[in-house]
Amino acid sequence: MAHYDLLVIGTGPAGQKAAVQAAKLSKKVGIIERKMVLGGVCINTGTIPSKSLREAVLYLSGFRQRNLYGAEYRLKKTITIEDLAFRANHVIKNEIRIVQEQMARNQIDMFFGSASFLDPHRLRIQRDRGELELTADFIIIAVGTEPARPSHIPFDDHTIIDTDGLLTLKRIPDSIVIVGGGVIGTEYASLLAALGVPVTLIDKRPRLLEFVDTEIIEALQRQMQEIGVTLYHNEEVLAVTRGRNHSIHVSLRHNQPIHASTLLYAIGREGATQSLNLEAIGLQPDTRGRVTVNEHLQTSIPHIYAAGDVIGFPALASTSMQQGRHAACHAFGHSDRTDTSLLPYGIYAIPEISMVGRNEEELTQAAIPFGVGIARYREIARGQLIGDETGMLKLLFHRDTKHLLGVHVIGEGATELIHIGQAVMAFHGKINYFIDTVFNYPTLAECYKVAALDGMNRMSGPWVPYI
Amino acid sequence: MAHYDLLVIGTGPAGQKAAVQAAKLSKKVGIIERKMVLGGVCINTGTIPSKSLREAVLYLSGFRQRNLYGAEYRLKKTITIEDLAFRANHVIKNEIRIVQEQMARNQIDMFFGSASFLDPHRLRIQRDRGELELTADFIIIAVGTEPARPSHIPFDDHTIIDTDGLLTLKRIPDSIVIVGGGVIGTEYASLLAALGVPVTLIDKRPRLLEFVDTEIIEALQRQMQEIGVTLYHNEEVLAVTRGRNHSIHVSLRHNQPIHASTLLYAIGREGATQSLNLEAIGLQPDTRGRVTVNEHLQTSIPHIYAAGDVIGFPALASTSMQQGRHAACHAFGHSDRTDTSLLPYGIYAIPEISMVGRNEEELTQAAIPFGVGIARYREIARGQLIGDETGMLKLLFHRDTKHLLGVHVIGEGATELIHIGQAVMAFHGKINYFIDTVFNYPTLAECYKVAALDGMNRMSGPWVPYI
Repeated sequence: MAHYDLLVIGTGPAGQKAAVQAAKLSKKVGIIERKMVLGGVCINTGTIPSKSLREAVLYLSGFRQRNLYGAEYRLKKTITIEDLAFRANHVIKNEIRIVQEQMARNQIDMFFGSASFLDPHRLRIQRDRGELELTADFIIIAVGTEPARPSHIPFDDHTIIDTDGLLTLKRIPDSIVIVGGGVIGTEYASLLAALGVPVTLIDKRPRLLEFVDTEIIEALQRQMQEIGVTLYHNEEVLAVTRGRNHSIHVSLRHNQPIHASTLLYAIGREGATQSLNLEAIGLQPDTRGRVTVNEHLQTSIPHIYAAGDVIGFPALASTSMQQGRHAACHAFGHSDRTDTSLLPYGIYAIPEISMVGRNEEELTQAAIPFGVGIARYREIARGQLIGDETGMLKLLFHRDTKHLLGVHVIGEGATELIHIGQAVMAFHGKINYFIDTVFNYPTLAECYKVAALDGMNRMSGPWVPYI
Repeated sequence: MAHYDLLVIGTGPAGQKAAVQAAKLSKKVGIIERKMVLGGVCINTGTIPSKSLREAVLYLSGFRQRNLYGAEYRLKKTITIEDLAFRANHVIKNEIRIVQEQMARNQIDMFFGSASFLDPHRLRIQRDRGELELTADFIIIAVGTEPARPSHIPFDDHTIIDTDGLLTLKRIPDSIVIVGGGVIGTEYASLLAALGVPVTLIDKRPRLLEFVDTEIIEALQRQMQEIGVTLYHNEEVLAVTRGRNHSIHVSLRHNQPIHASTLLYAIGREGATQSLNLEAIGLQPDTRGRVTVNEHLQTSIPHIYAAGDVIGFPALASTSMQQGRHAACHAFGHSDRTDTSLLPYGIYAIPEISMVGRNEEELTQAAIPFGVGIARYREIARGQLIGDETGMLKLLFHRDTKHLLGVHVIGEGATELIHIGQAVMAFHGKINYFIDTVFNYPTLAECYKVAALDGMNRMSGPWVPYI
């Protein structure tokens, strides 16, 4: 029976980075995957495929250029699932290969099978061809999530699907109801609407994505409505039934029932912890299968860590990677140097959203006096060139010291742009930096300068007006 | 006769920013434009139109997606000048409006006419309907450049054109010879090649763009050749004649003569100083019409400044703006806070190039021990998603202290990405910053992390391997 310094359960972003980090620290590492392929939800059914789809939709539908050329410049009148999947399949294969190579290069042993705890240091790996037992000093649970399938929704994987099912659809839906306005629901709603599918998005809460700046979300909701998303806030699905002509009938708590050809249930992915036999070691997942951890990603059993989607919010690939790395570093006595107050969030809706640092509500609650500076893409030559009339970058800064406290962006390239502000925040920079800096022309990065000038101009008090 | 605190000659990027900066400092400012429209070469025939064309070519030709979908996904089989100009015209109009509004908002008086010096404080403005004299405490010459038209090239504005003439072509050339491998020649060569036009680019020097990192230029040249640019280095045009069938015959110093339907002469734009009557005040432009200035943009007459393309290299809109601003600040006793060692350069070839800080040759000459870290777009999920297989980001850093000394990028989004590294350099950051930072996934910004890890891994010496 093999013994490891570290065993990692799951090969998504958190598991990969945990394993590689430990290997780089010269530890003996094994990693376990219950699916036939590496990469977890991120590569196979989540992040990568949905971002591939997004690129394909933006290109094939001519979406980005509609403001400039009009709708007749649409590349394909009829876009098929094959068109959309072409790119995704290519990228998925490549990413799997990269992960495989990385594991091999770092001499990480890979086991394909279903892991369960026998005791706090011992795992059983159930494989098609028999079992295996492995022991380890440290274990990291990075099993990710799987879609919740509540009993009142009659899933059939064709017309009533979960978030893992969208990619396996045979054709593009005539119309779709999406239940759940979290990151996944919001991303798919805008993507399908950009493709021309009538979308109804139903969310329990009064607005989408409550952790995002209010003004940014209002802009997002407005733009989603403009491209054909009907939004129901404060609403709940009571029942889903199949009607004649394959149409789906959705009863709502507050509104008239609605019909569509397809329903995507995008609420509450659950931690994929059921088969881990956590009760055997006294770990109790919460009601949604998620594992609770401390700031170092330790469970209540100190040598067992959990990282990635299985610990809940924000469940983004980028943060999951950092968590995996942090867990491995902590296990082997190295400190993680990442400043988690500077974790960026990226939401690949259409338009894209990204943010770093604090938002207005948080600053108000913390009684920090702050100023706001805004730049709109349409004021910037590059915004004009790419035809993004609605993009916006917002800086929040300390009213007295002018230190940058938060950046919130909606529009093309938001997830890239945010990293300029993130760097300035990391070095405790002030918004003056943007005013004193020369940006390439024409770029969207110029928004930082325009927003900083806007912010300074809104302030009272003496400063040399600088353009 | 009106008197001003500042008179600015020219309404391009340098002139605009100089005028607005002075107005923000509560000075009385006038600005003079000899063309009928504001904005200079940048808006009307240079930066903005060429970047508009570039976006249009990339979109309509499906260039960006060829790696992912194949050439059959090209949107338009036959692209016309109208298709290309559609976007440019829209953007040009909008940019002119923005400049006009900015001048009006800042109460800057605008004069349309040709300016010439009567004495060091006095200008005559020649207009269609008579003359006008204006005086000023300070004058900024921001007249830009115009194409050189050497006598051995028989320009006809149809088949033998200068760089201002490309936009007014009636149809896309069957083939083109471009003379001059500077920024403009390089940008147009790659743009036309992406459109499918056979391009021959002739340059006197052994490589394109000598101020750019060698490895980046080699990558650019390779990629330009792959899309159909024939490069002649160390070569000179001896004569240009028109043959039968409207074909153009180009004799070369070292190679066999070549033929094409169109010739674009893109060498040596000259300072547009001829009509300024500089000799009257004892200012002597150089042989190419350019004005010499000191570090504060002052000419040999201290109250007369020059800024923008008219002073020569680098002749980029972004730096011209900074020069205009600097001149105005200096004139009125304010210090400019821009760190000019951090000026970025952006070249909108296909692929795009950008850089900030120093390159390997400069560091070697300065005897600074440095390390190199490289990330290739194809290693990054986002690179895969957008199909950019050839992009590359290179970090140069101090071998001992790990301080970031330079960033060089070729590929999609290079001009935006550079600003992340620029911010880190501005705060004297080390490449460790990139290793410790969480980037959105999937973004091109992740290249910084991969390149920093590559750089650290190439170094000897103890560090905790961190992923």
